[in-house]
Amino acid sequence: MAVYTEVPAEDLVDFLARYGLGAPLVAKGIAEGVSNSNYLVETREGRFILTLYERRIDLGELPWFLGLMTHLAARGLPVPRPMADLEGGVVQDLLGKKAALIEFLPGVSISSPGPEHCRAVGAALARLHLAGAGYGPPRPNHLGVEASARTARKLGNRLDELEPGLAPFVAAAVERVRRGWPEGLPRGVIHADLFPDNVLFTGERVSGLIDFYFAATDLLAYDLAVTRAAWTFTTDGGEHLAVHDAALVGGYGEVRPLSGEERAALPLLGEAACLRFLLTRAQDWFENLGEAMVVRKDPLAFARRLAHYAKG
Amino acid sequence: MAVYTEVPAEDLVDFLARYGLGAPLVAKGIAEGVSNSNYLVETREGRFILTLYERRIDLGELPWFLGLMTHLAARGLPVPRPMADLEGGVVQDLLGKKAALIEFLPGVSISSPGPEHCRAVGAALARLHLAGAGYGPPRPNHLGVEASARTARKLGNRLDELEPGLAPFVAAAVERVRRGWPEGLPRGVIHADLFPDNVLFTGERVSGLIDFYFAATDLLAYDLAVTRAAWTFTTDGGEHLAVHDAALVGGYGEVRPLSGEERAALPLLGEAACLRFLLTRAQDWFENLGEAMVVRKDPLAFARRLAHYAKG
Repeated sequence: MAVYTEVPAEDLVDFLARYGLGAPLVAKGIAEGVSNSNYLVETREGRFILTLYERRIDLGELPWFLGLMTHLAARGLPVPRPMADLEGGVVQDLLGKKAALIEFLPGVSISSPGPEHCRAVGAALARLHLAGAGYGPPRPNHLGVEASARTARKLGNRLDELEPGLAPFVAAAVERVRRGWPEGLPRGVIHADLFPDNVLFTGERVSGLIDFYFAATDLLAYDLAVTRAAWTFTTDGGEHLAVHDAALVGGYGEVRPLSGEERAALPLLGEAACLRFLLTRAQDWFENLGEAMVVRKDPLAFARRLAHYAKG
Repeated sequence: MAVYTEVPAEDLVDFLARYGLGAPLVAKGIAEGVSNSNYLVETREGRFILTLYERRIDLGELPWFLGLMTHLAARGLPVPRPMADLEGGVVQDLLGKKAALIEFLPGVSISSPGPEHCRAVGAALARLHLAGAGYGPPRPNHLGVEASARTARKLGNRLDELEPGLAPFVAAAVERVRRGWPEGLPRGVIHADLFPDNVLFTGERVSGLIDFYFAATDLLAYDLAVTRAAWTFTTDGGEHLAVHDAALVGGYGEVRPLSGEERAALPLLGEAACLRFLLTRAQDWFENLGEAMVVRKDPLAFARRLAHYAKG
């Protein structure tokens, strides 16, 4: 939620000239994305998001992420299209950083989605899964079950500092998920982080799916499980919203019907999804202890969701 | 340069309904302003900046600042117009903060202005001074010479920690400025902070004058001195840009000719302007020692400018 790199207007003029997009009429640093700098830029040719990649992202993977966005946008998904410069290049160098200019999509993120938003996001996720077919090569999910198992081992009993009993609770869930992982289910491109702040709405219509920098190749039903965990609980995870959940899974199934095996695997995949966010948040929590300026997301919000899925 | 208050889309819908402006099509937190939260908001009716006032501003003074913007915009200045809600109200309550919805103006800030930018900004400042006549009641300049004198006394010899000899250099300048202050010069509304990041350009045309939260009633020529100090040096203050300076003062004089007394007072007013920024920056510097996350502006950049004006 910050702008790490200032882009002087003069550099922006030169940058936009690579695309033949004319002079900047508007350029505002926007508070979006956790580890990139983002600018809303407007020229006579349209509106764009300029992203400078600051850290956390393996720059060698940028072409994969941006290629995926291009692939999905070309198939009619509401995904912002990376712009190609006059020589066809998408990944740019700007002020010593890697950068990309990406189509701007209208819409607002909803913090308290209703069932109709959940139905729409379920359907959009299914369309993403169908449209992702044929995009390759695969990209391993670096935040999958084995990563969760490693982080759980590394944090060990420190998890109990967050809540007494959390360490054994997490260890047991990790074991359940590893043993029960439904390897044979349909795989493909997953978004892997489709939280409400990564979905734009115009009214109840999905107008944008953004932030593909966790996308990977994994079980499609796992992505549905992530999205359910993200959308169908109160923010603190304390209450499961059954009507929202039915709408989300229903919206998904209308576009891409789930197999019986996928449906049966959903609670276990829900546990896996909760472990992923619980553990990365817990790691951030301990790493940023005492850093008053860093907003830490509450790991326990996903411990509560995990408890919901763990009970079946 | 941050968004301190998150505005959920649902609250934004309710907020915009007060104005009858329709639903939000876009809402992006933008990295603008030092101590406010700002959102770029778009509806079918247009684009706006939503500002939530976080701190540093005396909320009782908000009507004065917003009234000034309305006054200047109504007189054709490129100043963003505060929107009135359906009941005529401009200052709003939102999420426990005072807030205002303000017209969005296109344009970009220039970090390395050329002489033509300086000429245009000089002319815009003079138009602001002419258009400000009749706006009242007066607002004392809380960052005037007496404030600088107080801060200089408070910091005392600590200034030498920034650069050996800075404390006596500043004390002497404070005395010169107090003794020589040209009390009888024309007074009126001044912007008092017209740095390049508070001016928007479309090409070489000034399309926006923003951030009026330091505006006050003071000597008009002092405002010109602030603007010269801000625009006609290299950023580090090490080099005076004479061609830029002549263009800025020339652009001003074409719209509002300076009297002989005003012209004669400019070097001393330049010293006063440099003291204001040197001392508030020095104060911030010492207050934020050790705060790695806070960007501190270099006080010495204005000590160097002060040295330029002090030599006459």
